Amino acid sequence: MNERILTGITTTGIPHLGNFLGAIKPALEFQSTDNDTYFFLADYHSIIKQQDPNLIIESVKSVAMAWLASGLDPNVSKIYRQSDIPEITELQWILNCVTAKGLMNRSHAYKDAVAKNIELNADEDKSITMGLFSYPVLMSADILMFNANKVPVGNDQLQHLEMTRDIALRFNHIYGETFVIPEAIVNEDTKIIPGLDGRKMSKSYGNIIPLLSDEKTLNKAIKKIVTNSLEPGEPKEYENCNLFNIFSSFADDQAVNNMKQAYAEGIGWGDAKEQVFSYLNQIILPIREKYFELLDSPSEIEEILISGAGKVRPQASELLSEIKDKIGIRTIS
Amino acid sequence: MNERILTGITTTGIPHLGNFLGAIKPALEFQSTDNDTYFFLADYHSIIKQQDPNLIIESVKSVAMAWLASGLDPNVSKIYRQSDIPEITELQWILNCVTAKGLMNRSHAYKDAVAKNIELNADEDKSITMGLFSYPVLMSADILMFNANKVPVGNDQLQHLEMTRDIALRFNHIYGETFVIPEAIVNEDTKIIPGLDGRKMSKSYGNIIPLLSDEKTLNKAIKKIVTNSLEPGEPKEYENCNLFNIFSSFADDQAVNNMKQAYAEGIGWGDAKEQVFSYLNQIILPIREKYFELLDSPSEIEEILISGAGKVRPQASELLSEIKDKIGIRTIS
Repeated sequence: MNERILTGITTTGIPHLGNFLGAIKPALEFQSTDNDTYFFLADYHSIIKQQDPNLIIESVKSVAMAWLASGLDPNVSKIYRQSDIPEITELQWILNCVTAKGLMNRSHAYKDAVAKNIELNADEDKSITMGLFSYPVLMSADILMFNANKVPVGNDQLQHLEMTRDIALRFNHIYGETFVIPEAIVNEDTKIIPGLDGRKMSKSYGNIIPLLSDEKTLNKAIKKIVTNSLEPGEPKEYENCNLFNIFSSFADDQAVNNMKQAYAEGIGWGDAKEQVFSYLNQIILPIREKYFELLDSPSEIEEILISGAGKVRPQASELLSEIKDKIGIRTIS
Repeated sequence: MNERILTGITTTGIPHLGNFLGAIKPALEFQSTDNDTYFFLADYHSIIKQQDPNLIIESVKSVAMAWLASGLDPNVSKIYRQSDIPEITELQWILNCVTAKGLMNRSHAYKDAVAKNIELNADEDKSITMGLFSYPVLMSADILMFNANKVPVGNDQLQHLEMTRDIALRFNHIYGETFVIPEAIVNEDTKIIPGLDGRKMSKSYGNIIPLLSDEKTLNKAIKKIVTNSLEPGEPKEYENCNLFNIFSSFADDQAVNNMKQAYAEGIGWGDAKEQVFSYLNQIILPIREKYFELLDSPSEIEEILISGAGKVRPQASELLSEIKDKIGIRTIS
C-alpha cells in the first residue's frame, strides 16, 4: 500500500545550506510516484513568533522557492499554503473542543518557555501567547485534515505528533471512526550541519553558507570557513577540522576519502576550500538555476501554490463536512 | 450615528419562558431600523460543553425558532449561524497569536472550573478542554469579525468583553488600526425569572414554564406553580408569593396592581392561576403561532440562516483579507 506522507514546512527565515541538507533534501526523498506526498507552507504557524508582515511574506516566498528549486515537484507531490485551506483553522477549533488543556500544559515548547520565565523571576506565562500554547492543536489539524498516515518529524516534533495521535483517538472515541491515526517517521540520524565557525549552522549565529545565492557569494562564504594556520605542504588532521566536517556533510564517500588523502598529503587551505567550493557548487548549480528562474517569475510560484490548494481543498472540505455532521453542526431539517 | 449591535445566541437547550423574558425579549428591544443589529447562533461554542450531536442540532433549531417566533426579523436584523462564517475560526487563530495566555488564565469561567477541581483534590485542569480555555478568543473573533461597536452582555459575560477589547487593542497596536473597540451594554437589572417552585427558572431544576408549547401544556404548567393552602375568600399576601412573582415578571403595572387587589380580596388560587394563564397566553399566542408555522417548514428556518450568512459573509471576507495582508499572509509577487 502506498503511504500518504505529509510534511509541514516552517516558513521562517531564508533557507541556507544547513536547511537544505538537514531538512529539504531528506524530506524530498519521500517524494515518489509510489507515495502520496503532501508538503505545505505553514504560514499560519509563522505568525506565532514573527509579527513583521514583510518578513513573513519574504520567508514564505524564499522557502517556497528553495523547496521548488531543490526538486519539490508539483506534478508529483501536493504542495500548498496552509492559509489557503481555511478548513484547517475551522478543524483546529473543533479539535480544541476535544483536546484536554492538560495535554497542552505538557508540551515541551511551552514548558521551556515557562522555565525561562521562572529563571528570570517573571510571571510564568510572560510573553507566551495563545498561539504558542495552542500550536500543537493547529499542527494536529494540519495533519488530520488530510488523513496523512505518515509524518516525518525531527525529535523536537515527536511529542507534538504524539499529541496529534491522542487528539485523533479522542475524537474517534467520542464521535466514531473519523481520523487516520498518523505515525511518525523519525529520522534518527538527523545531521547537524556545522556552520562557518563550527557551531551548528544557523542564521542567528551569522555562520551560514547560503543556498540561494550566486556563485561568487558562495565562494566568498566558503573562504570564510575557519581553519588553522598550518602551511601548504604540512600534513593536516581531518578530525575536528571544520572545513572537512562541512565537506563531508554533503560529499559522497569517494570524495570524502579523496579529501582525507589530500589532507594527509598537506593540501593548502586555499586549495582545499577551492575543492569544497567546486564540489558544492556542482550540487547547488541546478538549484540555483531554478531559483533564479523562479525569482524572475514570482507569479509562477503563486500559481503553483494556488493550483496545489485547488487539488487538496476539495478533500479538506469533504472531510470537514463529515466532521461537522458528526458533531451536530448540521442543516436544519 | 447608528450603532452596530451584535448579540450572540447560546444554542443549548430548548428555550423556556425564563429565556424569553430574561434574554430574548431584552435583546430584541435593540432591533430597530435605526440600528444595525446582528444576531448569531453560536453553534461552534455549543460543542464546548455538548458532545451529543443530536442535542446540538435540536437546540440550534429550537433556539432559532424561538428567536424568530419572538420577533427577530430577518428583514431588519442580520441573523446567521456562526459555523456558516468560516472566516470567524480563521480570525480566532490569528487572534490567538496576539492573545496573552495569561489573559485566558484569568477568565472567571476557567478559574471556576479549576476551583472545582481543586476542591475535589483533582488535577486542576481535569476535564477542562482547550475549547473551554480558548472560548474568549472565539468570542472575540465573533465580535471583531463584524466590527460591532456595541455588545449587550450579562454580568457574567462582561469580563469576556473586556478581553475582546484587550485583544483588539493589542492587534491594533501591533498591526495598525484595524478593529473597532466594542463597548458593552450591560443590563444592570437583568430579571431573574422564578420557576414553578420559586427557584430561578432552569431546565436543570425541572421547574420551567414552556415557551414553545400548545395552550394545554402551558395551562398545565401554570397549575403546577406552588402556592400555599389558603382557601378562596381568605386575603392573600403577594409578597413572597411565587405565583405573584412569576406574574409580575411579564405583566404590566396595571395588571400587577389589579392582581394585588385581587389577592387582598381573597381570590382563590385556581382563579388566580387562570388569570395568570390567560394573561401569559395572550403574550405567547403570536409566538406560538409563528413557532408552529416554522415547525411545519424547517426549510424556511434554514433558508433564513443561509440568506443571513450570505448577507454578512462578504463583510467578514473583506475584513479577513485586510487582516491577512496586515499580518503578512499575502500573495507572492
